[in-house]
Amino acid sequence: MDPMPAHGGQVRAVMRAFPDAPAPFVDLSTGISPYAYPFAMPDGAALTRLPERDDEDRLRRVAAEAYGVADPDCVAAGPGTQMLIALLPFLLGPRAVTILGPTYGGHADAWRGAGARIHEVTGMQDLEDAAAVPGGVCVVCNPNNPDGRVCDAAWLAALADRCASYSGILIVDEAFADFESCSIAPLLPHPGLIVLRSFGKSYGLPGVRLGFALAAPALAGRLRDIMGAWAVGTLALAAGCQALADRPWRDATRGRVRADAARLARCLAREDIEVAGQSILFVLARAAQAPSLWRFLCQRGLVARAFPERPSWLRLGLPRRPDEWTRLEQALSAWRPA
Amino acid sequence: MDPMPAHGGQVRAVMRAFPDAPAPFVDLSTGISPYAYPFAMPDGAALTRLPERDDEDRLRRVAAEAYGVADPDCVAAGPGTQMLIALLPFLLGPRAVTILGPTYGGHADAWRGAGARIHEVTGMQDLEDAAAVPGGVCVVCNPNNPDGRVCDAAWLAALADRCASYSGILIVDEAFADFESCSIAPLLPHPGLIVLRSFGKSYGLPGVRLGFALAAPALAGRLRDIMGAWAVGTLALAAGCQALADRPWRDATRGRVRADAARLARCLAREDIEVAGQSILFVLARAAQAPSLWRFLCQRGLVARAFPERPSWLRLGLPRRPDEWTRLEQALSAWRPA
Repeated sequence: MDPMPAHGGQVRAVMRAFPDAPAPFVDLSTGISPYAYPFAMPDGAALTRLPERDDEDRLRRVAAEAYGVADPDCVAAGPGTQMLIALLPFLLGPRAVTILGPTYGGHADAWRGAGARIHEVTGMQDLEDAAAVPGGVCVVCNPNNPDGRVCDAAWLAALADRCASYSGILIVDEAFADFESCSIAPLLPHPGLIVLRSFGKSYGLPGVRLGFALAAPALAGRLRDIMGAWAVGTLALAAGCQALADRPWRDATRGRVRADAARLARCLAREDIEVAGQSILFVLARAAQAPSLWRFLCQRGLVARAFPERPSWLRLGLPRRPDEWTRLEQALSAWRPA
Repeated sequence: MDPMPAHGGQVRAVMRAFPDAPAPFVDLSTGISPYAYPFAMPDGAALTRLPERDDEDRLRRVAAEAYGVADPDCVAAGPGTQMLIALLPFLLGPRAVTILGPTYGGHADAWRGAGARIHEVTGMQDLEDAAAVPGGVCVVCNPNNPDGRVCDAAWLAALADRCASYSGILIVDEAFADFESCSIAPLLPHPGLIVLRSFGKSYGLPGVRLGFALAAPALAGRLRDIMGAWAVGTLALAAGCQALADRPWRDATRGRVRADAARLARCLAREDIEVAGQSILFVLARAAQAPSLWRFLCQRGLVARAFPERPSWLRLGLPRRPDEWTRLEQALSAWRPA
């Protein structure tokens, strides 16, 4: 049995199928930065109290500043972007939904679960047409996961305008935008735009569960009302407030992950594995033998992300430590396609 | 300006209106146990990884055991009960909703926000009638907040049966049931019953944000699907797995909070303040002068929970430390109603 989970991060489940693989496992199945923000953990006493409105307001101000949004009332903070994605169909109500694919499956799952009609398109012209569907929703991941495609900011801005003029909404999932310069969040407040930002990936802290929806104040306020008073826990409030305020750390980390991503792409190219796309936090390889490469790596305790529905793809995140790099490089050089 | 927040826990906001009050503030505005479960915090490295499905499955097994539910597939874990309450209108779709009031306002807020028609009733016969509305939803908080009213378990079980026979659902919010013997969770799986359980109150850890919806497997599974793969963060998984498995601690703590609640009721009775109701984690006082008593306490740094819509009510949670008890007792004995 080769379990290829539909999400990254399920490393223990994968590795149960490879009991002879050497431990510890190297998790390359996600697009999470290897550099965790070194925040001061709140003391135990802080957990014995409900988070206060003050704390969340402060987080929203810091996030607005970090994301280039002028008005903190445009910010809704939630326990991870996945929960925000899940709530959007309920916030926006029944809509015709068009998703620029192939992309992260969570958007389609959420809308489908809420009973929406979904069209997945691959051409930008198709999306421009969809933006003229009255009251429709368009979804773009930018940079895209898993192929790293980046849409032109001016094109996205025009798309948001077009959605707005037809009473629709453009959702731009900027989960991988923190180290890039492609964000259109500074356009907010905008009547036809919702931007999603993830905290855990860029700050290397996915276990704290923190994400943001950025939208016009009335819409962001309705989302906050839905989630209620204590959507973000004490730990995420502390990590978020400290990390998002630290621009020097973010700038320094950008250089480190950029170098790592380039090194990872070189590793693949050296072994004649095609790099089909990349962002600053992952590289997408394409090979007819990708499923056998995935198994080959798993047997060596290296868990990449396979795509059962696109068997030629293999996404690799950034190794953390020197020994993880060595294990990956040795495995790739030992691999011989059938 | 006397800010009386619509929720407990907003102590800093309240105390800004009382700048001369002595610090530190004593927060009596919530129904949170003063005894925090002493769990082992996960190390920082655990936060650098996504929670795995394995971890949440383990939490669901531990929770099922703690709540007396035979099948862990009846358990959906979320980032606090408030988020689960927010999701129920979307999980269940448009319904006629009847709430046994007066009670915690979060249920009405969530259903109203989703566009539902809400009837608040105060008589149990009214609720029995509502249970016969085809496809309707009945909501009961048991024990009730803020008056501590406990409904008979056999009556609730019959109500759930009646809801089920009319394709409806009974939602029983057992946020304050952990130290009582009134839970009907062991009836699950049941086609007409959803039970909500809060983690933070009884285990004194509201900052971790953890709550559970217990329902028939298909319904619990749909709720898990809506929330997605990482609804519960690393900290909540650790705290929940450790605390919910520790029955000896829960039994010992039950005795301590019971003694504290009795002491608190005696404090009020000694000053001729009527105790209108109580649960094991709070006492509800009733006095024509409750608003002035609330201010009197705030001026002494003691923040109780006022109810703007029911001005004769004042809810007090349990003090934590001996000096907090002393401050409360001294303040109550110094108070002279006008």
